[in-house]
Amino acid sequence: MNYPSGVKKTINNSDISSIKSKMSHKNRGMTLESELNVSNEYYREIDKAYIYKKPTPIKITKVDYPSRDKTVIKEAFFTVPSTTDYNGLYKGKYIDFEAKETKSKTAFSLTNIHPHQIRHLENIYNHSGIAFLIVRFTSLNETYLLFAKDFLNFINATDRKSIPISFFRENAYLIKDGYKPRIDYLRIIDNIIGGI
Amino acid sequence: MNYPSGVKKTINNSDISSIKSKMSHKNRGMTLESELNVSNEYYREIDKAYIYKKPTPIKITKVDYPSRDKTVIKEAFFTVPSTTDYNGLYKGKYIDFEAKETKSKTAFSLTNIHPHQIRHLENIYNHSGIAFLIVRFTSLNETYLLFAKDFLNFINATDRKSIPISFFRENAYLIKDGYKPRIDYLRIIDNIIGGI
Repeated sequence: MNYPSGVKKTINNSDISSIKSKMSHKNRGMTLESELNVSNEYYREIDKAYIYKKPTPIKITKVDYPSRDKTVIKEAFFTVPSTTDYNGLYKGKYIDFEAKETKSKTAFSLTNIHPHQIRHLENIYNHSGIAFLIVRFTSLNETYLLFAKDFLNFINATDRKSIPISFFRENAYLIKDGYKPRIDYLRIIDNIIGGI
Repeated sequence: MNYPSGVKKTINNSDISSIKSKMSHKNRGMTLESELNVSNEYYREIDKAYIYKKPTPIKITKVDYPSRDKTVIKEAFFTVPSTTDYNGLYKGKYIDFEAKETKSKTAFSLTNIHPHQIRHLENIYNHSGIAFLIVRFTSLNETYLLFAKDFLNFINATDRKSIPISFFRENAYLIKDGYKPRIDYLRIIDNIIGGI
């Protein structure tokens, strides 16, 4: 799926993660993202939680006004997000997380998370928000919820450039595949937070 | 500032609200939005709250891959947002609001708020989030914080297509202009919520 230079292709909105992943890491996050989107939709349908993926941040450099009421963006670029991709509300609590896939069977590279996203997770954690990562090891078919506290502990304790799978197995929570919702990550939140 | 059909102009990211306002209501929300952005930046600088404006939602219809590592959006359109523009975290609480300006001296037209945004504010209120509108009457130089509860009460009680200024004066909270931050809306939250 590497397009040769200059080739155009018509795409829809749901392909953005695919485009973005091609920009840096091949196909990273695509399937996990769509599964999280339908899971969040399901949570909203049953009035359980209101958690959304933020729109992809872009920098617009050219616009057209073909008619008075119409605006067409003619040139824009993807930009680095300053926060995480997902946030929202569950049982009165602020929820905030980033979701990533990796093909590695042994470790999750920290290049997947931008430094300001790490800082953001730290801020959210310090201000009593519920902050975490959802990381899927696609080759292992294992999806983990890693709370920001444990993620930050790891980062602060070592100079390693990746988090080994063993750290996830010991410190993160395995999210089992489901049907409705596909990724029932709020069950982990319920189990940990308990009486909220 | 109405561009004739077909004229191109290079713009930067901060002009998006201006572009969007041209699409429907002339210049609506521009100044208020930038003042809120610097206020939220200030809240982050002093480690008080982490509240962000969401990126503008767009639908991408054409992309170019001029080189392997570069992606250029060649055609995209602004889309209707499904939630409010601002959300974040303050003292462990989920904050969610929409901000609008009006030139009217007498009323705030409900056409300014999309039906799904109203539904969203209702969901947030029902799930113990702190949901509100910030409405500026530019001709009066009066900026109000109207809690979702009072906003929804108004909507449910009448068939009116706009909220009269008298309703704001009686039920909303006047936000005084300041220096740092420009719009200290969290002071209202503090006063009302009290011991959070």
